[in-house]
Amino acid sequence: MEINQQRLRSDIESNAEFGAVPTDEGRGRTVLTGSEADRRAREFFCERLRDAGLTVRIDDVGNVVGRWAPESAAPDAAAVATGSHLDSVPEGGIFDGPLGVYAGLESVRAMQDAGVEPVRPIEVVCFTEEEGQRFGGGLVGSAVAAGEMGLEEALAIEDADGIPLGDALADIGYRGEGRVDAAAWEAWIELHIEQSERLERADAAAGVVTSIVGLVRCHVEFVGETDHAGSTLMTDRADALTAASEFVLDVEAVANERQSVSETAVATVGKLDVSPNAPNVIPGTVTLTIDVRDVDSDSIEYVIDGARENLRTIETDRPVRATMERPWNRSPVGMSDRCRDALHAAGRTAGIDTLDLHSGAGHDTMHVADVTDAALLFAPSRDGISHNPLEWTDWDDCADATRVLAGALADLAQS
Amino acid sequence: MEINQQRLRSDIESNAEFGAVPTDEGRGRTVLTGSEADRRAREFFCERLRDAGLTVRIDDVGNVVGRWAPESAAPDAAAVATGSHLDSVPEGGIFDGPLGVYAGLESVRAMQDAGVEPVRPIEVVCFTEEEGQRFGGGLVGSAVAAGEMGLEEALAIEDADGIPLGDALADIGYRGEGRVDAAAWEAWIELHIEQSERLERADAAAGVVTSIVGLVRCHVEFVGETDHAGSTLMTDRADALTAASEFVLDVEAVANERQSVSETAVATVGKLDVSPNAPNVIPGTVTLTIDVRDVDSDSIEYVIDGARENLRTIETDRPVRATMERPWNRSPVGMSDRCRDALHAAGRTAGIDTLDLHSGAGHDTMHVADVTDAALLFAPSRDGISHNPLEWTDWDDCADATRVLAGALADLAQS
Repeated sequence: MEINQQRLRSDIESNAEFGAVPTDEGRGRTVLTGSEADRRAREFFCERLRDAGLTVRIDDVGNVVGRWAPESAAPDAAAVATGSHLDSVPEGGIFDGPLGVYAGLESVRAMQDAGVEPVRPIEVVCFTEEEGQRFGGGLVGSAVAAGEMGLEEALAIEDADGIPLGDALADIGYRGEGRVDAAAWEAWIELHIEQSERLERADAAAGVVTSIVGLVRCHVEFVGETDHAGSTLMTDRADALTAASEFVLDVEAVANERQSVSETAVATVGKLDVSPNAPNVIPGTVTLTIDVRDVDSDSIEYVIDGARENLRTIETDRPVRATMERPWNRSPVGMSDRCRDALHAAGRTAGIDTLDLHSGAGHDTMHVADVTDAALLFAPSRDGISHNPLEWTDWDDCADATRVLAGALADLAQS
Repeated sequence: MEINQQRLRSDIESNAEFGAVPTDEGRGRTVLTGSEADRRAREFFCERLRDAGLTVRIDDVGNVVGRWAPESAAPDAAAVATGSHLDSVPEGGIFDGPLGVYAGLESVRAMQDAGVEPVRPIEVVCFTEEEGQRFGGGLVGSAVAAGEMGLEEALAIEDADGIPLGDALADIGYRGEGRVDAAAWEAWIELHIEQSERLERADAAAGVVTSIVGLVRCHVEFVGETDHAGSTLMTDRADALTAASEFVLDVEAVANERQSVSETAVATVGKLDVSPNAPNVIPGTVTLTIDVRDVDSDSIEYVIDGARENLRTIETDRPVRATMERPWNRSPVGMSDRCRDALHAAGRTAGIDTLDLHSGAGHDTMHVADVTDAALLFAPSRDGISHNPLEWTDWDDCADATRVLAGALADLAQS
């Protein structure tokens, strides 16, 4: 079965135009859910699905599904599904998400070209709000599809300006009807860039994920007292930023410490906001987020417990108050042996090395794996960089990973 | 000479309406230069000047001067001047600036009521952009009046949106003509809130400043690498925020250390911005400001040198690059003995204790002192809080400090 690398590349490069941001190096895009860039990316995807003869359906949370149901497929057979997402972080890269979406479509086209006659329909999916940059904590579309989040709850999630997701989708014409049901799928495989350097270091073109890390996100707020930066002696200060800085280093230290037990344990303070944020005012309030992940739940709890303990120490040592909330929680999840076997087998057939590894990033596949057999396939990321315009996967690697994906999908759809 | 406390309070409370912000406690306002709130505050001040029979002049950088030249004053005698500013930090208090402006006006009205016949005119001044929240580093109007900054240079200072100060003043109708010349003044006294707790602790109603601290402001940038928060192992990170956090604590530590030599030494990181500032992205860039002050220049250099050394250590220990710029520099400045003596004498006459102390905050008086005899008088600040809606000075204290100011101004204007 032959993959058309040029066709795949052309789709990904065309998609990269939507929300494109100027950069000195690399290629960046900002595609937030419900934005004009999102509308255009979705529109182009629907066109490409139709061009390949797939029927398009949009569900109530904007999940897009293209269905290929050739005559060979039994009309009521459960579909084999594949896909990823088209939204991005601010100034993200062009492969994170789109590779999986368009590799899914290319897999179908490759099967069509090769005359493959599957006994099951194949569905190519774009999930809504994977990144969680505008609405909620991310993975929204797949959470709804897997029944983990109610439709009404998802549609009511508000952005920072109080606009609900449902309205934002309606505004761009992508609030459809009904609900894509992941539990109805026979199996699911998502291709995604690795976002770390293990494949590159091993010189392997494809990685088969064994399990996806769990994730806990916390919101922390430090409250001190805003005061004049010149006339308040060092001994009279209640500086929320020095307290928060101590905490940022504590979180880093406890995650570093956990590495000796589980090297995949990570913790990040990615977002931090100072108020009132003026050069001559002692900061009165600092809010920040902690993002903690590992394949081992115990590591996550270890880091969170450590952070909480450090917070108490800071409150004792400094004249500030601190609060910590834990709004977002996700356990580690293992991948299906059956789907992983199909991927390894497809790799062998195509002469492509497939490496077992874990996923440090959360993916829509986490949700789908709760309701059906699911797997996650990785393509190499140059220098492990992602969420950045320097994110890059060589086109040859994109094609090789798509060969593995297409082989596994064809295998699953023919039985 | 009797001060009308109710009249003074009414002026300050009326002024507090402009840019008023809702707060749970206290009373806040946001009056940025060139804003509608600024326009209304200036307009009200001009009205109140005219109500008291003063002639109003606006100069090219928007400095407002009300001049009282009674028949007793020689037409060509150098004026005695007083005043402060009406702009504020975001969500600042209602006394920082307005107290000095309206106490100056109340002093004139008190002299008029008491039949004082000065041989010199008295000018009541509102300087433009003292806080430096929108344009430049602050003290802009007084820098121009003292000839330390050229008129063209000041008018060309741009805000974050690229709007020049000259245009912003013209937009609100407060770009006038010519230049107020502080060197032409016989003497200058500014009343301002103390912004620390020394007067309150000493139970004194007025503080006579001996010298104003020097101030150095630096811009620091940390550049690491944005990367995925989940898939980048702790050992593979170039996190700009953990580096910046270490620096924030270093700056605090070196300022604390300097306290043993000079307890007035302070250093503050008041503004810190993270990019891209997303929960699941390792921060690639952090920019921050350091504000370092003391009455002793050596202390300032000690802290800056220490910060610079720490920056080099952080660059060695972590995979980040750091740069530090020093765009803003101001030496400590001593106050005039003659003006200080007039203030102490006025305090004795009025039966009000006057305490010698330093000023930790920069003030327009710093500039004026370079070109004529100048002094700075403090009124107590409750709990030392300022740049905050909880900033407060009791109305009795406002009146007492105004009594001292009026007495000293009358003294200086009668000789």
